Amino acid sequence: MSTYADRLAALRAQLQNDALTGFVVPLTDEHMSEYVGGYAQRLAWLTGFEGSAGSAAVLASRAAMFTDGRYTLQVREQVPGDLYDFEQVPASSVGEWLGVHAGEGDRIGYDAWLHTAAWVAATERRLAERGATLVAVERNPVDSIWSDRPGRSVARLEVHPDELAGVSSADKRAGIAAWLKQQRADVAVVSALDSIAWALNIRGKDVTHTPVALAFALFHADGTAELFVDPAKLDGEMRAHLGSDVRIHDREAFVTALEQLGGQTVTADPATAVAAIFEALRRGGAKIVEARDPCALPKAVKNAVEIAGSRAAHLRDGAALTRFLHWFADEAPKGQLDELGAAAKLRQFRDQTNQLEDLSFDTISGAGPNGAIVHYRVSEATNRRIEPGSLFLIDSGGQYRDGTTDVTRTLAVGTPTPEMRDRFTRVLKGHIALSSAIFPQGTRGAQLDVLARAPLWQAGLDYAHGTGHGVGSYLAVHEGPQRIATMAGGQPGGDEPLAAGMIVSNEPGYYKTGEYGIRIENLVLVVPRDVPGAEKPMLGFEPLTLAPIDRNLIDASMLSAGERAWVDAYHARVAAEVGPLLDEAGRDWLATRTAPLDR
Amino acid sequence: MSTYADRLAALRAQLQNDALTGFVVPLTDEHMSEYVGGYAQRLAWLTGFEGSAGSAAVLASRAAMFTDGRYTLQVREQVPGDLYDFEQVPASSVGEWLGVHAGEGDRIGYDAWLHTAAWVAATERRLAERGATLVAVERNPVDSIWSDRPGRSVARLEVHPDELAGVSSADKRAGIAAWLKQQRADVAVVSALDSIAWALNIRGKDVTHTPVALAFALFHADGTAELFVDPAKLDGEMRAHLGSDVRIHDREAFVTALEQLGGQTVTADPATAVAAIFEALRRGGAKIVEARDPCALPKAVKNAVEIAGSRAAHLRDGAALTRFLHWFADEAPKGQLDELGAAAKLRQFRDQTNQLEDLSFDTISGAGPNGAIVHYRVSEATNRRIEPGSLFLIDSGGQYRDGTTDVTRTLAVGTPTPEMRDRFTRVLKGHIALSSAIFPQGTRGAQLDVLARAPLWQAGLDYAHGTGHGVGSYLAVHEGPQRIATMAGGQPGGDEPLAAGMIVSNEPGYYKTGEYGIRIENLVLVVPRDVPGAEKPMLGFEPLTLAPIDRNLIDASMLSAGERAWVDAYHARVAAEVGPLLDEAGRDWLATRTAPLDR
Repeated sequence: MSTYADRLAALRAQLQNDALTGFVVPLTDEHMSEYVGGYAQRLAWLTGFEGSAGSAAVLASRAAMFTDGRYTLQVREQVPGDLYDFEQVPASSVGEWLGVHAGEGDRIGYDAWLHTAAWVAATERRLAERGATLVAVERNPVDSIWSDRPGRSVARLEVHPDELAGVSSADKRAGIAAWLKQQRADVAVVSALDSIAWALNIRGKDVTHTPVALAFALFHADGTAELFVDPAKLDGEMRAHLGSDVRIHDREAFVTALEQLGGQTVTADPATAVAAIFEALRRGGAKIVEARDPCALPKAVKNAVEIAGSRAAHLRDGAALTRFLHWFADEAPKGQLDELGAAAKLRQFRDQTNQLEDLSFDTISGAGPNGAIVHYRVSEATNRRIEPGSLFLIDSGGQYRDGTTDVTRTLAVGTPTPEMRDRFTRVLKGHIALSSAIFPQGTRGAQLDVLARAPLWQAGLDYAHGTGHGVGSYLAVHEGPQRIATMAGGQPGGDEPLAAGMIVSNEPGYYKTGEYGIRIENLVLVVPRDVPGAEKPMLGFEPLTLAPIDRNLIDASMLSAGERAWVDAYHARVAAEVGPLLDEAGRDWLATRTAPLDR
Repeated sequence: MSTYADRLAALRAQLQNDALTGFVVPLTDEHMSEYVGGYAQRLAWLTGFEGSAGSAAVLASRAAMFTDGRYTLQVREQVPGDLYDFEQVPASSVGEWLGVHAGEGDRIGYDAWLHTAAWVAATERRLAERGATLVAVERNPVDSIWSDRPGRSVARLEVHPDELAGVSSADKRAGIAAWLKQQRADVAVVSALDSIAWALNIRGKDVTHTPVALAFALFHADGTAELFVDPAKLDGEMRAHLGSDVRIHDREAFVTALEQLGGQTVTADPATAVAAIFEALRRGGAKIVEARDPCALPKAVKNAVEIAGSRAAHLRDGAALTRFLHWFADEAPKGQLDELGAAAKLRQFRDQTNQLEDLSFDTISGAGPNGAIVHYRVSEATNRRIEPGSLFLIDSGGQYRDGTTDVTRTLAVGTPTPEMRDRFTRVLKGHIALSSAIFPQGTRGAQLDVLARAPLWQAGLDYAHGTGHGVGSYLAVHEGPQRIATMAGGQPGGDEPLAAGMIVSNEPGYYKTGEYGIRIENLVLVVPRDVPGAEKPMLGFEPLTLAPIDRNLIDASMLSAGERAWVDAYHARVAAEVGPLLDEAGRDWLATRTAPLDR
């Protein structure tokens, strides 16, 4: 197997062949997906980086990796520092770095199927200041040198039945059609895989951990749609499900179809449609209306059937996680567990539900200092013994056909230090403050973010990631448009009003580099709150996740009466709902872990 | 005196003369000032509206007033509803309303000296969709019909000495010059009156409540400046203060000077420079760089001398307010006070300091239901008796040469109802949460806003205004760029990082229409906070305002131990600092009002 130095050298040679002096390698696919199929894992193949977000920029004599605060440590462990500079976004960016390091006359290549038009425009401007140009490539040069690149998945599409979706595809397409009329538009281009899956009530197996299929779609103002997908992925049942109002084309016909929209008014979402889509529409003479993907908001606001499904999935998943926590409490003190073994055991408990379709992401199983790597991914090379006196952080989730879960628990092995308990309790106070917030309709996630941080800030501490992300219904574990985060990070979503029916995570944390990591994550449902005497409609959160929070790490003396009451009520609910799914030993153990906190 | 109906009819007749079918009347001046001189009070003259922010749009058969949530009630009391529709911003806007009500072929006039270029561009677009056009007028048609319009103030400029400013004008101009070089620009256009006053260490008396002079300025990259001002306003002392590096021109020469900047790179702030300035620069062929007014941030970050001055001003002002509160406590129960009398008495106590230059805004003296009008301004017509069993809200401030104050106290007359105490205590909890927040350097005001609202939200309540605004040093009582507010309101500033040395208000409230208003406002200074073990530089707030908070309105059972400790510590500080400035009776009274809360 070639080294990363070999691959970088090969890329540079290929660039010379292609008359380029540089190239940009993002981690995404033609759908601006967060998780991508193996065929699109160009960044990992080139650099060794295994995180879920990042980019590389390669020049003739210099290259750099761009990652956010979650991956500051991980990127240094996985990517050779002698080959790549390490740059942290949003303080730095590919465009800014190229604006400094590109030379006059440089021709920097990019793949128009892997970038937004906004990125292209901004980067072009930067390069123009240096006298350099940005050049769309005909063929991605990484693909030219990646000899054993996997092909696109050929997995079959699966019907997501109305009993789980709650709303038929015809009704969803009617909604999109009504929206198109409002926009005075004829066609909506939808390229986000989860949006296509949602609108057509289909699922797939083409992307690890996200049950979507590689496809593009056009939705028309008459309620019909066109689906561009490898026809080998469809069987008779799927064709019957899609019906005659969804016309099937080969995925390769998509560009031509875009070019044939001349004269029509076409909406496309600049956040999810890549530059190549806009270029094809422009070539064909369509009138382009930049507008948010019409599936984004209705997909985020779950209907009653989806909410019931999510509750069922969370109860099932909570029971599996609780079995794991019980097993861990017995085994960990013996000092023989390691990160891989723990993750495998948790997977086993989830598998035993017989309803697990996939994990919703690679389990983050972080012992001691590895817990401080925010999006750590355990491998044989990094696998670490879970030692007495340490903390163990496990962030995991399952894809069930009725719902997607995502939960983090931090566990003390043996006796935690007073500092660990102080930090854990501050994180818990933040988690509780957010979980019990009541807020007016129209409130944006960014407004609430501080509630989760304030108890850490009081001690001069913080965490370098957002507080909450949306979650799909048997779809992406990271789903927009809403988000609970500061507006500063450059990620969108903080300004989206929270609406009843949205699911978001509540996951404050604290990370002490080289020592331990703490995160407490529940998924919560946005619900109307009936407050007596309220002068406006109010909303709040209801936890969906059901699993005990490690009481060994709680310093109850730091909690207010209200905070203690929250913990006790949450634990009572866990005992009442999860308990009946356990055997007697499990139920007895859970009872001790969910009893009211000592006063 | 003509009626508002007469005036509106006269304006419509004038518009016909001017070949216009509509006109927009904002409340501002050529400097985008919030408070304006009498000559620029066109909106009040035309419509009767006396609030501090609003606009009118007049069409041939329809007109509308646009105000924000603070003025929802007031506008209906002051402006005839048969003449004007009432529109609330930001839900509605002049542009949106014109986009609906303007007709094809309409020619809507605007005064390019009273609008930003962004407003012009956005409104032009809206009108174009209707087939109507926006037309810059040669002469403001309101001025054509306003026969007794006051002239511009001819008040003298005053030197603001280095002993109060802390930094000489030469040093400030050197700072602007350094900034210009960073921007690769030659000249900065500065049209905001408080910025000019700050940079040149001058003050004026041309605008009610804000000690600024009507002027424009250009700052050059060599550290010199040009001041465009009525020469009659300068005496020998002022000319000596300004020195030879500040060249004086008549205010009328400003446009010509802008037109003569052709070939130079000129910065102008699109938020404060009006459209006419950009047009003049463009006519002359200058290369325009849109950039924030270079005075805005250094003016907001007070230096040590300004901070010491502000502390002295607040102590003096706090003693005057405390004398008033004592007097009020004695007099109000007799049932003979009214709003005008109370405001006059407070003014008298401030005058007795012998250092009051002006009030910093018209005192808001709101008894009972008038307290629920957020920016109420008492007049003979609205003057209300302060009745036992009611609440009295008084929001006021003083302009002293060493500092600007702004403080609100809400006072119970007789025994408040349990509901009043509940609401007051929630507002107080919000005030305390914000005042005692500790937050990392780089935190924006918008992130903290929720801290002040959460205790109200828990009861389904809220307030329809921002939580905090910046305050100048013997300058504008509302000063940017920082602000503590939701980002939703459309007002800028919430995304400005708070920096040590900034002064902001902390003023949550609650308003029950038709019954009472509550607001608790202190000015606070952003200060570094030395938190043991902190992992990043942290900031916090230190109250500058010193006056007791009405303990009759506090339900101590609703406060946490920490909140009670905050109240007791704040009151102890008020007693220790203000007490020595009072006579014995005042000191004794203050001691009873600042004693620790009952447990």
